[in-house]
Amino acid sequence: MFTDEYFMKMALSEAQLALEKDEVPIGCVVVSRNRVIARAHNLTETLNDVTAHAEMQAITSAANFLGGKYLKDCTLYVTLEPCVMCSGALSWAQISKVVIGARDEQRGFINQHLSLHPKTEMVTGIMENECSSIVKEFFRSKR
Amino acid sequence: MFTDEYFMKMALSEAQLALEKDEVPIGCVVVSRNRVIARAHNLTETLNDVTAHAEMQAITSAANFLGGKYLKDCTLYVTLEPCVMCSGALSWAQISKVVIGARDEQRGFINQHLSLHPKTEMVTGIMENECSSIVKEFFRSKR
Repeated sequence: MFTDEYFMKMALSEAQLALEKDEVPIGCVVVSRNRVIARAHNLTETLNDVTAHAEMQAITSAANFLGGKYLKDCTLYVTLEPCVMCSGALSWAQISKVVIGARDEQRGFINQHLSLHPKTEMVTGIMENECSSIVKEFFRSKR
Repeated sequence: MFTDEYFMKMALSEAQLALEKDEVPIGCVVVSRNRVIARAHNLTETLNDVTAHAEMQAITSAANFLGGKYLKDCTLYVTLEPCVMCSGALSWAQISKVVIGARDEQRGFINQHLSLHPKTEMVTGIMENECSSIVKEFFRSKR
């Protein structure tokens, strides 16, 4: 039951909430021992704040829930590959695992030759089409 | 009067406030048209939050002051070279100028071969000794 797809669907629901606010539709959840301890979606326009990416909010929120700044035994499910800023935050958090929906060749951290913390396992391509489509559709509608 | 040293001294005062809270002593100010519009110091331990670097707080605070997410006509003065996360945030903010006190060879963004936004001018080495000493002394006292 608690598959990567199960939690990625929740991240996609968060992306949908962003879309409804006319935000770039990216969402994520943080899961610890099969329990969702944080969920967030991109709010950069709503909050007028470039730091309000889904991942940044989720890291702060999960740390608050856990009462410690390191996200040990935690997995982040995120619909789009994190940017440089968010990958840096995930590294500081020493999160155990990051599961990515779609790649972001332009703005993602991977093509910048950055890596996450040595402790962090990474998986890509979970529900890739759905995660990619929602963002592509958003930008198409803006043109 | 409004020299780089003038504003870096303010950033150093912020670093001093971090030191008094037993935080890694890094501070910054954001200046727009010779006016300080945000000031912050590292609060990662106090807030239990890896994202609470001085620069991240200052970016959010300056954007809030300006009522827009882009830090046009703004200069960030920071005592230590920004990390990957903070350099990513500064890039998203398209800040006009970044003035750095001391380099951070280990954790700084420059040795990661990252760059700021093409619009962003960068200056390093302002009050380098003072900015470096306060951090080195902090880690020496922890050993």
